[in-house]
Amino acid sequence: MSNDEQVTIEGPVCPLPLTHGNQIVMGHGSGGRMSHELITGLFLPPLDNPILRAGDDGGVIEVNKNRFSISTDSHVVWPLFFPGGDIGRLAVCGTVNDVAMMGARPLYLTAGFILEEGLDIETLEKVIASMRSAAEEAGVLIIAGDTKVVQKGKADSLYINTTGIGLIQNGIDIGGARAIPGDVVILSGSIGDHGIAVLGARGDLGFETDIQSDVAPLNHLIAAILQTSNRIHVMRDPTRGGLATSLNEIARQSQVGIVIQEESILIKPAVNSVCELLGFDPLYVANEGKLIVVLAREDAQQVLMTMRNQHYGADSVIIGEICSEPQGRVLMKTSIGSTRVVDMLTGEMLPRIC
Amino acid sequence: MSNDEQVTIEGPVCPLPLTHGNQIVMGHGSGGRMSHELITGLFLPPLDNPILRAGDDGGVIEVNKNRFSISTDSHVVWPLFFPGGDIGRLAVCGTVNDVAMMGARPLYLTAGFILEEGLDIETLEKVIASMRSAAEEAGVLIIAGDTKVVQKGKADSLYINTTGIGLIQNGIDIGGARAIPGDVVILSGSIGDHGIAVLGARGDLGFETDIQSDVAPLNHLIAAILQTSNRIHVMRDPTRGGLATSLNEIARQSQVGIVIQEESILIKPAVNSVCELLGFDPLYVANEGKLIVVLAREDAQQVLMTMRNQHYGADSVIIGEICSEPQGRVLMKTSIGSTRVVDMLTGEMLPRIC
Repeated sequence: MSNDEQVTIEGPVCPLPLTHGNQIVMGHGSGGRMSHELITGLFLPPLDNPILRAGDDGGVIEVNKNRFSISTDSHVVWPLFFPGGDIGRLAVCGTVNDVAMMGARPLYLTAGFILEEGLDIETLEKVIASMRSAAEEAGVLIIAGDTKVVQKGKADSLYINTTGIGLIQNGIDIGGARAIPGDVVILSGSIGDHGIAVLGARGDLGFETDIQSDVAPLNHLIAAILQTSNRIHVMRDPTRGGLATSLNEIARQSQVGIVIQEESILIKPAVNSVCELLGFDPLYVANEGKLIVVLAREDAQQVLMTMRNQHYGADSVIIGEICSEPQGRVLMKTSIGSTRVVDMLTGEMLPRIC
Repeated sequence: MSNDEQVTIEGPVCPLPLTHGNQIVMGHGSGGRMSHELITGLFLPPLDNPILRAGDDGGVIEVNKNRFSISTDSHVVWPLFFPGGDIGRLAVCGTVNDVAMMGARPLYLTAGFILEEGLDIETLEKVIASMRSAAEEAGVLIIAGDTKVVQKGKADSLYINTTGIGLIQNGIDIGGARAIPGDVVILSGSIGDHGIAVLGARGDLGFETDIQSDVAPLNHLIAAILQTSNRIHVMRDPTRGGLATSLNEIARQSQVGIVIQEESILIKPAVNSVCELLGFDPLYVANEGKLIVVLAREDAQQVLMTMRNQHYGADSVIIGEICSEPQGRVLMKTSIGSTRVVDMLTGEMLPRIC
């Protein structure tokens, strides 16, 4: 692909300050470029080890010849309840999914609660009931917990950390660095639903939408995929930072180029309308029940069929392929025939989306 | 023991409101009675399973004949830095210790950060350096992380969740329900240091103290104990709620009585002075580097010697024994010859101590 075909568009417009001296700003929690800079610049150097350095959704450990995937996520979504889900369902699904992305079968979760003084007990009950139902759907048990309470004004109602562990079957070797040129990229459905649903629940839109969050446990979908093909190379759920950021992570980790087709990417009309109105690019809006699969071309059609037969994969499509170049970059063939460089999210578009 | 010998003293004075309608209050985070009521009344019914119900410091799971202990803790200590430690050291040691209390060798930790917008990067760097050094001392790796940022005023600088996993060797079966009459209770050193050190750092005392927190990883001490005896029945670190609350938990879980000797319990003079001045009972003040061991009487002297030879066990003493009654209660023979019922902590004495 020659450079003169390319029209470079910088990351999406960022309404929040990028830097403020030597202080943490909202962009550090975006999941995009600033989060990556914080992690690689501040967290990794002192804590460095090969597992952490891999930079995948879950850390893979081996104990007595058993390989496990372990992942942790603190959930600070606001508001607590939104169309299609709540912080409880999100906390369970988010971690189940991150564990499963390494090809593991999620088994157990822990849950750590930070409660703000004055929180209604009834709210907490609803959240826990939702965690129970999500855990049942995913088939995982919550086996350890912790509750801390902080004074009024020192938290925003309720934060939940979940950490999960899953077992990786022998022969499975999935990771962000395993994409190879020629591989095909499948996306399991429409993008942007979660981010726009949460934004709508904040009442900031000034109009009503019926957009529902896609928050869901993807482990059964993943189990079906792994039964269909043993040539799955990468799986990732495009959460914070959206599809664009996840694809950029894979391109960097695998040192490959990724070329996607704009017209193959499903965006619900209502999501598209809100994004156009607010100047958001849906490629950067968070999802909580979607899956990117990078796999050998030979198995792509069969895996696509398997995915479409699963509830959470019914709208799966092939959106692109892995190329040898441009290394570490993502290109999109637009519907008008041009090629656009799709960068990582810079700054923060929608804070506290998960 | 006849009832007429007993002088019942209710739990310590509680300066914070116990209940406020149907809302969460600070006492729900105390680690004492209200925390237990919240857990058993609200969290356990929907999430119930045998592992969670055991109510131990770590949940014990078995995967392909390997037994693991998993524990989670969110750390909200204020201030972040205090004599003898900081939130980073606390976050690593707290979880290492909870994992190790089940007789496991801690292997890996995850770390989930909730950062408040405006936090100084330098502060975060110091905390991470401290986590690194505590992890090195404990011999564990941090293998997965997560960073969220919330708006100014929605957190208090920095909260850290750590979750840990450790491997339990075959033949080890330790848990809060395993104390049996005739067992001996060993305590690894002085009590109350952590709570009073943190309180002092708040500047609320109106005078200076040189009390240092005892925050430390206890896994090497525990490994030495397990090499000395295979008749260790219970281990617990008396953190939130202090020695009194941990002993009450053991008495309830094992359905035994525990009788301790007041004069055997080491309290540093400076800690004692502050407690007397503020009306605190040191039995209820948090520790972060102390260990209660309940074990067969035959091995008590040898384990005591082992513990005294370890850095974090140098001041170990036998403080009491397990009796068949009064079931579920803790009695203390006071230095003036009377017997006092030592109840769980009611309400909250020192909020955000860990």
